[in-house]
Amino acid sequence: MPTYKAPVEDVLFLLNDVFHIERYNNLPGFAEASPDLVEAILGEAAKFCEEVLSPLNRVGDAEGCTRHDDASVTTPKGFKEAYRQLTDGGWIGISAPVEFGGQGLPAVMTEIVNEFLCSANMAFAMYSLLTQGAISALYVHGSPEQKAMYLPPMIAGKWTGTMNLTEAHCGTDLGQLRSKAVAQPDGSYRITGTKIFISAGEHDLAENIVHLVLARIEGAPAGVKGISLFVVPKFLPNPDGTLGKRNGVSCGSIEEKMGIHGNSTCVMNYDGAIGWLVGEANRGLNAMFTMMNGARLGVGVQGLAQSEVAYQNAAAYAKERLQGRSLSGAKFPDKAADPIIVHPDVRRTLLSIRSFNEAARAFVVCTALQADVVHRAEDDAARRTADDYMGLMTPVIKGVLTDTGFANAVMAQQVFGGHGYTRESGMEQFVRDARIAMIYEGANGIQALDLVGRKLGKDGGRAVMAFFAEVKGFLDEHAEVQALQPHLGPLGESFGHLQQATMWFMQNALSNPDNAGAGATDYMHLFGLVVLGYMWVRMVAAAQQKLAAGADGATQRLDAKLVAARFYMDRMLPETAAQLARIQSGAASTMALPAEAF
Amino acid sequence: MPTYKAPVEDVLFLLNDVFHIERYNNLPGFAEASPDLVEAILGEAAKFCEEVLSPLNRVGDAEGCTRHDDASVTTPKGFKEAYRQLTDGGWIGISAPVEFGGQGLPAVMTEIVNEFLCSANMAFAMYSLLTQGAISALYVHGSPEQKAMYLPPMIAGKWTGTMNLTEAHCGTDLGQLRSKAVAQPDGSYRITGTKIFISAGEHDLAENIVHLVLARIEGAPAGVKGISLFVVPKFLPNPDGTLGKRNGVSCGSIEEKMGIHGNSTCVMNYDGAIGWLVGEANRGLNAMFTMMNGARLGVGVQGLAQSEVAYQNAAAYAKERLQGRSLSGAKFPDKAADPIIVHPDVRRTLLSIRSFNEAARAFVVCTALQADVVHRAEDDAARRTADDYMGLMTPVIKGVLTDTGFANAVMAQQVFGGHGYTRESGMEQFVRDARIAMIYEGANGIQALDLVGRKLGKDGGRAVMAFFAEVKGFLDEHAEVQALQPHLGPLGESFGHLQQATMWFMQNALSNPDNAGAGATDYMHLFGLVVLGYMWVRMVAAAQQKLAAGADGATQRLDAKLVAARFYMDRMLPETAAQLARIQSGAASTMALPAEAF
Repeated sequence: MPTYKAPVEDVLFLLNDVFHIERYNNLPGFAEASPDLVEAILGEAAKFCEEVLSPLNRVGDAEGCTRHDDASVTTPKGFKEAYRQLTDGGWIGISAPVEFGGQGLPAVMTEIVNEFLCSANMAFAMYSLLTQGAISALYVHGSPEQKAMYLPPMIAGKWTGTMNLTEAHCGTDLGQLRSKAVAQPDGSYRITGTKIFISAGEHDLAENIVHLVLARIEGAPAGVKGISLFVVPKFLPNPDGTLGKRNGVSCGSIEEKMGIHGNSTCVMNYDGAIGWLVGEANRGLNAMFTMMNGARLGVGVQGLAQSEVAYQNAAAYAKERLQGRSLSGAKFPDKAADPIIVHPDVRRTLLSIRSFNEAARAFVVCTALQADVVHRAEDDAARRTADDYMGLMTPVIKGVLTDTGFANAVMAQQVFGGHGYTRESGMEQFVRDARIAMIYEGANGIQALDLVGRKLGKDGGRAVMAFFAEVKGFLDEHAEVQALQPHLGPLGESFGHLQQATMWFMQNALSNPDNAGAGATDYMHLFGLVVLGYMWVRMVAAAQQKLAAGADGATQRLDAKLVAARFYMDRMLPETAAQLARIQSGAASTMALPAEAF
Repeated sequence: MPTYKAPVEDVLFLLNDVFHIERYNNLPGFAEASPDLVEAILGEAAKFCEEVLSPLNRVGDAEGCTRHDDASVTTPKGFKEAYRQLTDGGWIGISAPVEFGGQGLPAVMTEIVNEFLCSANMAFAMYSLLTQGAISALYVHGSPEQKAMYLPPMIAGKWTGTMNLTEAHCGTDLGQLRSKAVAQPDGSYRITGTKIFISAGEHDLAENIVHLVLARIEGAPAGVKGISLFVVPKFLPNPDGTLGKRNGVSCGSIEEKMGIHGNSTCVMNYDGAIGWLVGEANRGLNAMFTMMNGARLGVGVQGLAQSEVAYQNAAAYAKERLQGRSLSGAKFPDKAADPIIVHPDVRRTLLSIRSFNEAARAFVVCTALQADVVHRAEDDAARRTADDYMGLMTPVIKGVLTDTGFANAVMAQQVFGGHGYTRESGMEQFVRDARIAMIYEGANGIQALDLVGRKLGKDGGRAVMAFFAEVKGFLDEHAEVQALQPHLGPLGESFGHLQQATMWFMQNALSNPDNAGAGATDYMHLFGLVVLGYMWVRMVAAAQQKLAAGADGATQRLDAKLVAARFYMDRMLPETAAQLARIQSGAASTMALPAEAF
């Protein structure tokens, strides 16, 4: 049975020593997040995740969700009680606006807590993650009446949210969608159509479910410019917020899928369901992207989360499992065999995962702080810079953290040998659950194309130039710090590869866009490796400072950071040379075959 | 519902045009394998796999195997009838010795047919693969009486075989095993112990099951030098070959696992079961390795097989699924969208898989031909050279083909977007089934260590030097062939990386074996990339010759080979530079952390 321990100390190191959260105290909600409060909140979240959610993870996988003949859906045993504890703890709304019942704390707190939730039980966490996404979309695009009606119960978790985009014939290409909305004299709409892959579409955890649905208003233009966003509650709320009659939306079936069985992934049938327009007509995709960008960061966190919990269990197993002897002679001659942690290949596996996890967590914290700046800063320039950063990094976080998170779950499973292939170990569940994160909220190929095709060139390359300047600034500033040189050298080289790849696209993609498309995935991962390398040097600098200042009981933990950083430079960064070479090989061999030859 | 089409034409190209199977006609069984007969056999195998086994693949996954209260096991619906067709076709024994009822055809034929079987239905194919392994072990190590008793019904498929190594506390480290054997006055033994992860341990397909079991004879030395191999039939055969009484071996439970649900993976309880020694006492590991080496080649084939069937279905989907528009403008403006095969990232995905599959198939054919030389050549030097090659390449085939095969199944699944995550698409089954191949018959970390720690240095490096000389010979010989230069350049560079990495181990691993351990997995994959690159240049040379000679209807297929080869050089080989860098970074950062810091 897998276990989980939330990495609270690692998070506190990031918040306090690396990113200096106190520097953001000018933003609303930050001053309230005093170091003591942050530590207390994370401690509570950790306890809930470790003791309540983690033991339910296998139950949820084994039992799954059940749709009954009346189209109602039951979640796995224990989920209802755990959900009650989640809402009692106020975890859904810790960063939500105070005026609607949230706690108004920094968004970075939510991302951190979401990592813990997803490590402990990803299928369970999705119920609240979707709700948070729907809250964001309604908060930004909803009318004052809609906000007053929907946000308080959603922030409290009494009502949950969903996002309804995909139809059987269109996922990525939403311009093809067919669900239609017919205007009614009272200003409402009647929505008809079938949506698939709707996470948390129907369940028994909350008293109401608020569906955000993309549909085309009768007579609207074809393509993406004719899509509108609607709010379609399962139960129509009365003006006083109590629940009225059942709306014409129901779960047609639950998808049988590879993993996240504890989350009900539904086919949702809209049969003249009553809905109300959110934001402007025909601007629905725009509104949905508010939700999607937050969701993409959240999905990146899921990749990290599965990688983290898989690491923890693999490391524990490697320290316990006695098998074979160290290459350099028995380390525990009195035992039947050495624990497999003595083997370099097992350590290589574990350190590959860990050196990703810690840097990815830094990347998430760093990005979430920028999200706070976007949403809370008064200064236009600061907001713009942060928004540039978010736009650039969203596809990198989503694509790289989920691809690597999945690969890491696979590697962690491998540490268990044959036992990792059994259900009992729980390791194969991490693999199956992690797999979806590479797909939903925009498959990773789409993330790569978003990065290369849209984000790089946006505003004359302002965002990417700003990031390059930041990295270069760090390298220059620390060029004389001897202790950092072993790390800065490899980072500088990989950063050079990233700059060359970027230049290559500028020179070769305009004339032939396929050159960008063929190199997009490699570029996204090259970008990710450099960002994570940059996170590592920032962590190393902070750790070295802290060690120099006398780190009290944290010496071993900080020393381990230095080793993991060194491993990252030795073993992860060399990949960037290969990525650059692949990008520079261009699209010729990729595009040469006629379609029928595949 | 996934489909499958056996790559018969590709195999014929390899046998006839690349490896010139007629050159082996001096070996027993080869002359009989005339081109016409080979084509007919492959056609029959293809038909059986495509029409009978492939449609059963999802059935097997969904239904799994069932253990009943009387410890009997039922296989999924349809498996019994399919198995009857398998034995009626004589497929288990096509390469088995004629004297025991086999057809005596080259072993390469068996490996090719096994690829087809495993693509169509890996869980089903394992019943016969295990039997083939047991046949090999008994043929080499069994007494004349044992061979006469067991081989004919096993070759006919009336009886199946298993291999029983793993116990709960020991898998890789067999020296720890506890199953014991007590000698009886009649020369038999009584075997007692519990074995886990026993594929095909109990089922309803055959009338008897022949278990090959590792156990320790009472009083034998501790460790691997006290392990013996026993044959323990489920039903004790009477001298006339009819079945006698039930032996004391039974299935305690079926493992719940991630995939290959159609195969019964059993906990087997030996409770004073009657068995007979196979080969010499205390030399059981040696005998089992006869079985393991063949099995490792076979498991490598499973990796290729899953990659192939996943490719075929992803390519078909990419040509059908309409989503978005080509980056260079709509290709099918009259349709709602272009098929996703227009997108460079989808093509990159497909070509990454395909350029592996075709080269991996060449590698399998090439290696299986060497296996034939080992077992059939009269010339000692030829046998020795082939045996060197087999020893060196076995871990590479097993490790690289299964790691990459799994990664490819994941990539193919990704082409389907959200649909790939559903059970319905069948793509996620390929991923779950492929996953086991990285683990069983020696986890891939063990393969890497076998390569680096044992095979490289064996006999003064004779095997690896011979392979290097062969590659260098090819490069030199074709240095003036203009049409090959675009391929030979990248291969030469990667080959240089492999030579440097080998040299680095020679200089750094003796003083510190952890330097070999830390680089072993990278080295195995570096080796694999170079071998597959070498396979590609051989295929390109053959294709170019054939095209020059006028290829009749095969022009498009051969042109596609040239493109896939070019893609391999552009996109796959750059990785070798990164692998070399990782290897040369040594073990320092890998070994620095104390165990408790993980």
